[in-house]
Amino acid sequence: MKTNPSWFLRRFPSGMPRPDDFVLEQGRIPNPGPGELLVKSLWLSVDPYMRGRISPAKNYAAGLKVGDLMLGGGVGEVLRSEDPGFRTGDIVQSDCFGWQTHTVIPAKTAIILDPEQAPVQTSLGCLGMPGLTAYFALLRTARPKLGETVLISAASGAVGQIAGQIARIKGYDPVAIAGTDEKIAWCKELGYRTGINHRTASDLAAAVAESCPNGVDVFIDNTAGPVHDAAMSNLNVFGRVVVVGTVALADRFDRPDIGLRHLRRILIQRARIEGFLLDDFASENAIAKAELSEWYKRGLLQTREDILDGIESVPSAFVRMLKGENFGKQLVRL
Amino acid sequence: MKTNPSWFLRRFPSGMPRPDDFVLEQGRIPNPGPGELLVKSLWLSVDPYMRGRISPAKNYAAGLKVGDLMLGGGVGEVLRSEDPGFRTGDIVQSDCFGWQTHTVIPAKTAIILDPEQAPVQTSLGCLGMPGLTAYFALLRTARPKLGETVLISAASGAVGQIAGQIARIKGYDPVAIAGTDEKIAWCKELGYRTGINHRTASDLAAAVAESCPNGVDVFIDNTAGPVHDAAMSNLNVFGRVVVVGTVALADRFDRPDIGLRHLRRILIQRARIEGFLLDDFASENAIAKAELSEWYKRGLLQTREDILDGIESVPSAFVRMLKGENFGKQLVRL
Repeated sequence: MKTNPSWFLRRFPSGMPRPDDFVLEQGRIPNPGPGELLVKSLWLSVDPYMRGRISPAKNYAAGLKVGDLMLGGGVGEVLRSEDPGFRTGDIVQSDCFGWQTHTVIPAKTAIILDPEQAPVQTSLGCLGMPGLTAYFALLRTARPKLGETVLISAASGAVGQIAGQIARIKGYDPVAIAGTDEKIAWCKELGYRTGINHRTASDLAAAVAESCPNGVDVFIDNTAGPVHDAAMSNLNVFGRVVVVGTVALADRFDRPDIGLRHLRRILIQRARIEGFLLDDFASENAIAKAELSEWYKRGLLQTREDILDGIESVPSAFVRMLKGENFGKQLVRL
Repeated sequence: MKTNPSWFLRRFPSGMPRPDDFVLEQGRIPNPGPGELLVKSLWLSVDPYMRGRISPAKNYAAGLKVGDLMLGGGVGEVLRSEDPGFRTGDIVQSDCFGWQTHTVIPAKTAIILDPEQAPVQTSLGCLGMPGLTAYFALLRTARPKLGETVLISAASGAVGQIAGQIARIKGYDPVAIAGTDEKIAWCKELGYRTGINHRTASDLAAAVAESCPNGVDVFIDNTAGPVHDAAMSNLNVFGRVVVVGTVALADRFDRPDIGLRHLRRILIQRARIEGFLLDDFASENAIAKAELSEWYKRGLLQTREDILDGIESVPSAFVRMLKGENFGKQLVRL
């Protein structure tokens, strides 16, 4: 009988998660109940939000408990459907995949994909959660004006790469912050005007000032931490900061970090700092997906994926992504 | 010949300003040029924004230089007018008074007051800059909804006392933070539902939680510092924080303070933190003043003043206000 290797949470990580915070067990292949689908996982996604789900600290969604099956976005093939809207062989995307080779998902969370329109794993990247995050954070929350300088951290990551390209399409002036020279070079290929390697800049605030000679009008903050400080010290009057992610805090997640506080700057610049959650824009998802898909079809949106293979590699892919060692959207192919 | 005692900036304060950062000199009574008025000062105002003007740090307005005459809001009687719009004997308000008994102001900065409508010094308080600040910060920037909890720091101060009363008038749920039990008691008389003494609370975050059982929807932050932290840790989803002042940083003004950073909280709660400057609302000043005046005439707006007498006391009044030792709008009567 076939087994179903599955990753469970062994303990809440202390600081930066490690692969051995998770444990692989050989479970049985589950049976779908009414309204459920049994799917074979083809792609699993690892994303920064998952760090919040495996912490006892307060979050916007209920967290996992120790011993729970790890959950996340995935793409898979329907092996058995207990819902009239889905058939065996359908390729579906859902945010409720387990970290396992076979998983049961509620049919209402699943979307049928058309492999002829785009590679199915784009539903986990530029045409899915990260792409929508970039779209709404930039166009709905920050709302830049034509020509404004848009600084983006984790600029080659799943969200950043799309945010930078949307900024270029819309006529803003995108500037990248990323962690290697190779990432910066690729960001420039995507249409970022220039970029800053935050790991090698001797004075990050000065580097931002040099790369943004007109100051920073919008900052799409995927990281928090020292990169945030460098952006804040260059923020223009009426500057807008959208806090999309805090991946730089992944190793000190259960308590606030200590550092410079920017309230004088916020006051003097009449700046706006705003937290972002994709769920708040659900009513506009269809419109945004249609626009992203159109750009993708016309070749205006490129995407880069960083792929590890095999169910064994999911925790490593997750930690790698949290540490910024990935180059592009981190995926696991099964 | 009459002299004109005037306060000049002796040095940039290091930390909390002290009265001897200013020097009193016996100048001559100046002559107004074309478009100017010579006025005899009746009331001088000291306000938190002045701390930023006597610092070499960046601010929204150009700062004073060492040796400059101290400037601020005042009310006075016109002794001589070189502008056709003003006559001798007019009582005027302007934000360009020197800290001196006789001052020359540009006529275009002056507004003629009608002493029969309201005591003239209200033009420096509830019907002037602090009142307008409270009005716009609450109604235009924070925009609370009916019944929402509005937490206000420096709640009995010039801005806070008006913000709390507007919140009551509009049907919000105002909660005060102030530094003495007497101030809290008076805030409740004004219509604050309850209040917190931040100097005696053993756990400020817990005290805010107790006073705001439904959480904090809006925080009008006049102080920054530890009070800000206590509000942030109780901020609701979609909470709004308006940074109106940073008086708690008056003693460490030239560098950012170090402390807890709230980016995770901002993200998780999709909170909005926004800096406020009254100048940005100039086009709506007339409407706001009319509404404030109407409330004042109908007895809906009370105001409390903390008055020192004599030109000698201006620096003491200023320092007293920065330290929160005032109770109500700090004024100097000449």
